[in-house]
Amino acid sequence: MFASLDGFLRLALLVSMLAFAFASWLYQWVNRQPSSNPRVAEVGKYIRDGSYTFLRAEYKELAKFAGILAVLILIFLPKGIWLGNPAENVLMAVAYLAGTIFSGAAGYIGISIATIANIKSAEAAQQGIRSSFMASFRGGAVMGMSVVGSVLLGVSCLLYITDNTSVLLGFSFGASSIALFAKAGGGIFTKSADISADLVGKVELGIPEDDPRNPAVIADNVGDNVGDVAGMGADLFDSNVASISAALVIASVLDKGMGSVVNASMVICFATLGLLSSMIGVSMAKMGEKSNPTQALNNSTYITTAIFVVVTGIATSVLGYNWRIWGASMVGLAIGVIIGMVTDYFTNDEKPPVRATAKAAETGPAFTILSGISYGFMSVLPPLIGIGVSSLVAYKLCEPIGEGYAMFGIAMAAVGMLSIVGMIISNDAYGPIVDNARGLVEMGDLGEEALEATDILDSAGNTVKAITKGFAIGAAGLTVIALLGAFMSEVNEAAVRLGLVGISGFDIMDPTVFFGMLVGGGVPALFSAMLMLGVSRNAQRMVVEIHRQFNDIPGLKEGEPGVVPEYAKCIEIATSGALKELVPAGAATIGITLLVGYVGGVKALGGFLCGNIVTGLLLALFMSNAGGLWDNAKKFVESGHHGGKGSDAHKAAVVGDTVGDPFKDTAGPSINTQITVVSLIASLAATLFLTMSIF
Amino acid sequence: MFASLDGFLRLALLVSMLAFAFASWLYQWVNRQPSSNPRVAEVGKYIRDGSYTFLRAEYKELAKFAGILAVLILIFLPKGIWLGNPAENVLMAVAYLAGTIFSGAAGYIGISIATIANIKSAEAAQQGIRSSFMASFRGGAVMGMSVVGSVLLGVSCLLYITDNTSVLLGFSFGASSIALFAKAGGGIFTKSADISADLVGKVELGIPEDDPRNPAVIADNVGDNVGDVAGMGADLFDSNVASISAALVIASVLDKGMGSVVNASMVICFATLGLLSSMIGVSMAKMGEKSNPTQALNNSTYITTAIFVVVTGIATSVLGYNWRIWGASMVGLAIGVIIGMVTDYFTNDEKPPVRATAKAAETGPAFTILSGISYGFMSVLPPLIGIGVSSLVAYKLCEPIGEGYAMFGIAMAAVGMLSIVGMIISNDAYGPIVDNARGLVEMGDLGEEALEATDILDSAGNTVKAITKGFAIGAAGLTVIALLGAFMSEVNEAAVRLGLVGISGFDIMDPTVFFGMLVGGGVPALFSAMLMLGVSRNAQRMVVEIHRQFNDIPGLKEGEPGVVPEYAKCIEIATSGALKELVPAGAATIGITLLVGYVGGVKALGGFLCGNIVTGLLLALFMSNAGGLWDNAKKFVESGHHGGKGSDAHKAAVVGDTVGDPFKDTAGPSINTQITVVSLIASLAATLFLTMSIF
Repeated sequence: MFASLDGFLRLALLVSMLAFAFASWLYQWVNRQPSSNPRVAEVGKYIRDGSYTFLRAEYKELAKFAGILAVLILIFLPKGIWLGNPAENVLMAVAYLAGTIFSGAAGYIGISIATIANIKSAEAAQQGIRSSFMASFRGGAVMGMSVVGSVLLGVSCLLYITDNTSVLLGFSFGASSIALFAKAGGGIFTKSADISADLVGKVELGIPEDDPRNPAVIADNVGDNVGDVAGMGADLFDSNVASISAALVIASVLDKGMGSVVNASMVICFATLGLLSSMIGVSMAKMGEKSNPTQALNNSTYITTAIFVVVTGIATSVLGYNWRIWGASMVGLAIGVIIGMVTDYFTNDEKPPVRATAKAAETGPAFTILSGISYGFMSVLPPLIGIGVSSLVAYKLCEPIGEGYAMFGIAMAAVGMLSIVGMIISNDAYGPIVDNARGLVEMGDLGEEALEATDILDSAGNTVKAITKGFAIGAAGLTVIALLGAFMSEVNEAAVRLGLVGISGFDIMDPTVFFGMLVGGGVPALFSAMLMLGVSRNAQRMVVEIHRQFNDIPGLKEGEPGVVPEYAKCIEIATSGALKELVPAGAATIGITLLVGYVGGVKALGGFLCGNIVTGLLLALFMSNAGGLWDNAKKFVESGHHGGKGSDAHKAAVVGDTVGDPFKDTAGPSINTQITVVSLIASLAATLFLTMSIF
Repeated sequence: MFASLDGFLRLALLVSMLAFAFASWLYQWVNRQPSSNPRVAEVGKYIRDGSYTFLRAEYKELAKFAGILAVLILIFLPKGIWLGNPAENVLMAVAYLAGTIFSGAAGYIGISIATIANIKSAEAAQQGIRSSFMASFRGGAVMGMSVVGSVLLGVSCLLYITDNTSVLLGFSFGASSIALFAKAGGGIFTKSADISADLVGKVELGIPEDDPRNPAVIADNVGDNVGDVAGMGADLFDSNVASISAALVIASVLDKGMGSVVNASMVICFATLGLLSSMIGVSMAKMGEKSNPTQALNNSTYITTAIFVVVTGIATSVLGYNWRIWGASMVGLAIGVIIGMVTDYFTNDEKPPVRATAKAAETGPAFTILSGISYGFMSVLPPLIGIGVSSLVAYKLCEPIGEGYAMFGIAMAAVGMLSIVGMIISNDAYGPIVDNARGLVEMGDLGEEALEATDILDSAGNTVKAITKGFAIGAAGLTVIALLGAFMSEVNEAAVRLGLVGISGFDIMDPTVFFGMLVGGGVPALFSAMLMLGVSRNAQRMVVEIHRQFNDIPGLKEGEPGVVPEYAKCIEIATSGALKELVPAGAATIGITLLVGYVGGVKALGGFLCGNIVTGLLLALFMSNAGGLWDNAKKFVESGHHGGKGSDAHKAAVVGDTVGDPFKDTAGPSINTQITVVSLIASLAATLFLTMSIF
């Protein structure tokens, strides 16, 4: 059975089906939980409908975008269709569309369960914290299993059918397109809703945060789902596909040399075992009598990790894989955990950075900002060193195996790091579900005890979120290094096909490379600036609409019974605005990439990717960590320190949190996707720019 | 006479002497201007004494630091002294010390004239704006001429005596040490004084900005001088030396190959002609009847540029230099001007970014911050593209000449860009002088007309400052690329000496290079974070002292006549604190550089430099531009827009300005120096890490 790659692919298909079955069981389980409160059901329905409104609008835009890109791919990639072999171009376009559909479907499933699980979890909180935990966690796990199941299903189907690893880059690019829309678009949506709701509600009218009179309040809750559930899921879908694709592209070159499938099979095998480990980890998760939710979440992550280490070890031994490559995977896994711990240090309110920033809030908003920016800057170096060291170690570990294995080692480190991604997504999707549940408990008036339970669950969600966010950025870091390797493989394969001289690397001292590097270095800054300005503009539009409703709907401001604001209108504006703001940012990024390729050819593109990775990681880590830090500094002040709620320090901390919101929820995490998109475009267009460039 | 390099060096010596003579004439001219007001004289003396207090303390610390480094250089550089040829080590240590002394002396001269010119300029304002302009501009020009004169004197003397270009790197490193202390230390000083004076004076007690009761008010004025005059002078001294040294190191390798001195002589010749052009430009500067000061400053810059273009063209034709290399210099010059224009766009209050940020201030401090950060991020890409394109064009222009000329072209682009640096420094030093003069006019009560005149002069200073700042960063960008080339030259020369295989470049795909790149990319973030946190801590210390004085000195708070605060005490605290905060930041940077070299050898160091350049330029541009933008947005609001002074928008704009202050005056401009320091250490330690590294 293990003799050919097909065997592995069939196994992968089987396991992905198992994951879907498991997800479906979890879905049913969550759906079976009792719910009865009509007020919770009503608000829950608003959130659910709003989320679907956004998804539908997003997918409609995306369909146009994907359609255009599919046509362009058909014409130009992997090389001009007029140059013969149109079947390859058709295959690439189909793979691209498949990538968008698979990722989109996973996001849809995630939203669909998250907007059920929030209700179930809210009502379960009346029975106690443990049942509420189970409802939210299993809701999140549906998303985790669906995402990783879809990744494995898509990759193995494509490989089974086409037997061509380059096609995987098309699939991966499709996933990136979705991630760009879901993460950046969702990020703009969620923050503009959040900010405009606060500006008019809390600041102007002085009504509480989740007041149902506020027309933007449902949009704000929808934002948690579309940004954090669908967006984050698409992001990790993207990284996961990219890491596996990059590893397979490199493996196929190695395997071709020896006429075997050992390396490719190892990639498939490890990815499959990662999903299996996550399934076991998820099924074992529960809150003990005396444990807390953070412990429960962390325990299941540790269990998953331990199982993965053991089963891949057994597989390596039984199937005769090279232990050095196994070691590289383990290095990646370890560094993911370490980066998570660093993120925790900089964003945990029991550690000095958050404490110092909360204290700085006493001296006013300017010092809160300066302190957060400073610690945010500081938080960047340790993960960068971690990624650098792990790629160096993985490389050196696998270098002795033979030519080309060093880069394969890095790719396998990324695969290793992302192996437990099913578990990570489950933990991460848990966060917005309990956040929503907490809101529902409040709006449905389910009692003090339930509120307390969901408060504890929510706080655990925030802690775990910081760790998984660090993990996601680290994973993206290693993945894009592997993609850089895949890019070079693509370039050289194309060069051979075209009878051109290939390239042996990208020398910094070559000014074409250096030019690309400087330009690539500036792109993440431009991209995040455009997203953040988009949030501001979109929030302004929503403010206008909120004002209109308060003025035009009689009795709304006064809270007369039966008077309901037009929630859907706000959701519509947030949706269309978010997509409108996203397009120029995405187009600028893609346009500059193509321009650099046209000016400097593949060498400039190599430099471009490299500069993009370095400053992209820098800014992503900076913005995510600074944002998390300000958020927790505000919560620390609110919990009664430095004057507590309502004090001047609190006002200053709120300014920090408001700046941090688009940092950590819009721009920061979108940069990951920006890097992946750019890397994939470069790989896909490698052939094009080999033959067509100014320098 | 032009047959040998010695002839050129003698000419350079002559011109540098001429520059000193000119500076001395300007000094006398400024000193001869009338001054009579006793109050102005008194406050002026406080500022002067305070500036010397800082300089003395700084130079004392620096002497220790330089002493230790000189000993380390003596032992380890260019290679372990135990490996033979101790004379080389002695020479390197001496060159290093000479670099510190020359740069230090230029800074001392600058401070000495700036603290005279401020008084003269204040009193001249009573006679009208044109006399006041002349006093400030000629004061600034003393600094300009001294700095560039010292650079040329130092470089040509060293070369004349030793005939060894590597020694120049030692000289350059000495200049960088001073720049690190002057720019970063001065930056911490000036901002902690500024912030603490405002916090206690304006915020707590509600007394005006320049109230003489405030013990920190003189420290604040001193800060303008030590940060902007001495600091900026040291920074440009450093860049200028580095660009000439890098070009000479590369030229010497080229010349050795053909047994001539043509390339080295071209470097010396162009640098000499640049100084001559600046002298002519400075001597022609004056404000016409109907012109404004900005025009006057810009006109003299254009005159200098035009003269430089013509005379280097003549020199190239007469001396038979290669026109391609001349072209590369012109490309550098042009791109410097373009970068200045981009900076102007993002920081000028007549352009959209400042206007939008001022408007955002209406919605509160968080949006002011987000808007400034967004436009700051956006402002980064055009200059990066500019630097990338200019290095690419310079490279491609000179590549056909022969092997090695391509990198020489980049070095000559940097030399070309910095050729008019004498003029740039003159314009830049003009800023803090008129700023001080304005304060003196107010404190000395010299009348409305004088205040109006100095207001106009001050505003011109701010506009020109933004342009020169962009210019300085662009120059640093090209210089460090040239230094990267010099680093490789050094590595290969050392490899030949040691019988090792040299390196042909730094391949991004080599994980050692990539590891270095990621770590190097994180360093500027860490460095700026440490400086900014240093400002906060130091400001806290000063606040304690200001409180103490208001409590302990009877009658101070009430403003009883004859009661004077202990200004010197505040200056002392600002000084010792600034140096204390600076040392860890500098030590961390240097330590990490050496560690990376030890771990990954010269390849990792090459990557390290590259990552450092990319993110260093990114952060330097971001912080300088965002800071300038906030400053001008605040001024725009203060001039009566969006509610004007005292409005909520004004308060929000002040928060932006306070965040921007350490951005633009401490961290941003210090990153230049950090990059240069790191590049030079890498070059100097090249031999060491060729033989001693883990990987």
